[in-house]
Amino acid sequence: MVSKVEHRDRTGCPIACALDIIGDHWTLLIIRNLMFLGLHEYKEMLETEEQISSNILTIRLKMLQQAGLIASASHPESKRRKLYYLTPTGKDLVHVMVPLVLWSRRNLREHLRIPNDIDHLLETDPQAFLQETLQRLSDWEDNNLKSLV
Amino acid sequence: MVSKVEHRDRTGCPIACALDIIGDHWTLLIIRNLMFLGLHEYKEMLETEEQISSNILTIRLKMLQQAGLIASASHPESKRRKLYYLTPTGKDLVHVMVPLVLWSRRNLREHLRIPNDIDHLLETDPQAFLQETLQRLSDWEDNNLKSLV
Repeated sequence: MVSKVEHRDRTGCPIACALDIIGDHWTLLIIRNLMFLGLHEYKEMLETEEQISSNILTIRLKMLQQAGLIASASHPESKRRKLYYLTPTGKDLVHVMVPLVLWSRRNLREHLRIPNDIDHLLETDPQAFLQETLQRLSDWEDNNLKSLV
Repeated sequence: MVSKVEHRDRTGCPIACALDIIGDHWTLLIIRNLMFLGLHEYKEMLETEEQISSNILTIRLKMLQQAGLIASASHPESKRRKLYYLTPTGKDLVHVMVPLVLWSRRNLREHLRIPNDIDHLLETDPQAFLQETLQRLSDWEDNNLKSLV
């Protein structure tokens, strides 16, 4: 089997190239943590229901940084703590993640637990949900990164 | 580490639940084969540039069938050959896969090789690309499955 990380410069397929970065299960859960759940610290991400291992989390965070989808800054309260956040390329995945939520909602409904207000918004105006997500990320950056510049 | 296949009935997160089925790199390449490349046979899928192993291909095809995203029928020319195709739930992933192609096109452009006519359509009218994809799948079904009913 050829290593999957070799696709990007080899096959040129836009699906294969994207999956080299984000095709991994745990990688997309890290994107989810940053995009929808407001989890920006390593320790918070370790504590999600899916129970990612510290080893996988460390490797995936590093890979996502190298690929330019996430970046990190020192926590204002402690230089030993890091705040991870999505870069513009990472935030641009909102256009893939929201359709993924909608697909899941249409096809796996019986397995899901979605808060009522979000479920209603996904039903009536998914574009507003997408815009609210981007606004929330922008507000977080204003509150957490501006002071670091 | 908790097995990732346990998320679906455990966490209820629409991203985690979707990734239990399609979060795997090779799984989404199989969806790509069926959705965009017109590859419907096991042997054809083994021969793609990404060189999936026969073991992984067998396991992923079985998983996708169990999850209800793909189905199979006997090949009209030989009962020993199988034709795989997307179910309505599988085809519904077009709304995730096309945004993934567009994200890749915006962010990984230097790595991609996209045929000029498709690249132009993605630039000017991605919704038309999505509709053409669904039409192509429908035409394939008319040509290959109707005779089997």
